[in-house]
Amino acid sequence: MKEVEKERALTFIEPGPVVLVSTFDGKKNNVMTISWTMAIDFAQNIVITTGSWNYSFGTILATQECVICIPPANMLETVVRVGMVSGREVDKFKEFKLTPLSAKYVKAPLIGECVACLECKVVEYIERYGFIILHVERVVVNETLKEYRMIHAVGDGTFVIDGEKANLRELMKEKLPPGL
Amino acid sequence: MKEVEKERALTFIEPGPVVLVSTFDGKKNNVMTISWTMAIDFAQNIVITTGSWNYSFGTILATQECVICIPPANMLETVVRVGMVSGREVDKFKEFKLTPLSAKYVKAPLIGECVACLECKVVEYIERYGFIILHVERVVVNETLKEYRMIHAVGDGTFVIDGEKANLRELMKEKLPPGL
Repeated sequence: MKEVEKERALTFIEPGPVVLVSTFDGKKNNVMTISWTMAIDFAQNIVITTGSWNYSFGTILATQECVICIPPANMLETVVRVGMVSGREVDKFKEFKLTPLSAKYVKAPLIGECVACLECKVVEYIERYGFIILHVERVVVNETLKEYRMIHAVGDGTFVIDGEKANLRELMKEKLPPGL
Repeated sequence: MKEVEKERALTFIEPGPVVLVSTFDGKKNNVMTISWTMAIDFAQNIVITTGSWNYSFGTILATQECVICIPPANMLETVVRVGMVSGREVDKFKEFKLTPLSAKYVKAPLIGECVACLECKVVEYIERYGFIILHVERVVVNETLKEYRMIHAVGDGTFVIDGEKANLRELMKEKLPPGL
């Protein structure tokens, strides 16, 4: 995977994809599936909503880091299955044949099958809403995939895959953030 | 537009669409475009990130309410143009030929051209991140459109429209929230 400008972090979160969140608790890599994420600002801060029902949640708070990875459309069934079991019982990287790659700023792994991975450090946890505020330290992208379409969860067990693209850069040029 | 179960609120936010946020300041309807939104829980709480640079932001805090509407793909250019001008100078409902319809629980208008609208009351404003926590009071959907695909902002002036759908309800049945 190849490092790119940190400004691109936003372009992987803002479209609203399902993401895989990887962690390392000191002994074992783990991964969970979530789709409650949001961009916060143009300084590469993002937020995810989760809570104590997720085994990964405890690891994120204990280690103060994680990696947010964007799976391509052909990983949909794996992405759902990752979300159906707990890392308490299963070694999910092994079970789902995910490839852990070393990150630079965190001990949690990149996932080699994903479109992009964001290495993140925890900024703050806002308990009453389950918000974990994350700062993206590094963005890496995969340049070897045949499939780059993102997956969007509807929330009722159905999903939508990226379709047509539209370019309105010219119309929006005054409003585009620096570096994009 | 037709009222549906509140549980469906999630299904309009979780896929990560660009949304139009309508407000009424006591004198004039207004609307802004944002794509930084997130589901919080299964009790129909959601969050949007915005700030004082948006004219609508002041109205949301002053009135403690707004309507979040999901525009269909054929409104893309309008959605971008709504985001390029301020309600300080322009009557955006008139300028962009949007149809304001009466909501039930808030004074901000529904937008007749949208796929769905969520009538929202402000729960809390978390200033340091620009988070406005909203509770969805009512969900209405449009049953008369020819286009229901959502728009996703990449954040760099390009957009992706909903494509293929996939149904994994059977695989996920243990994890689906009640009512969906």
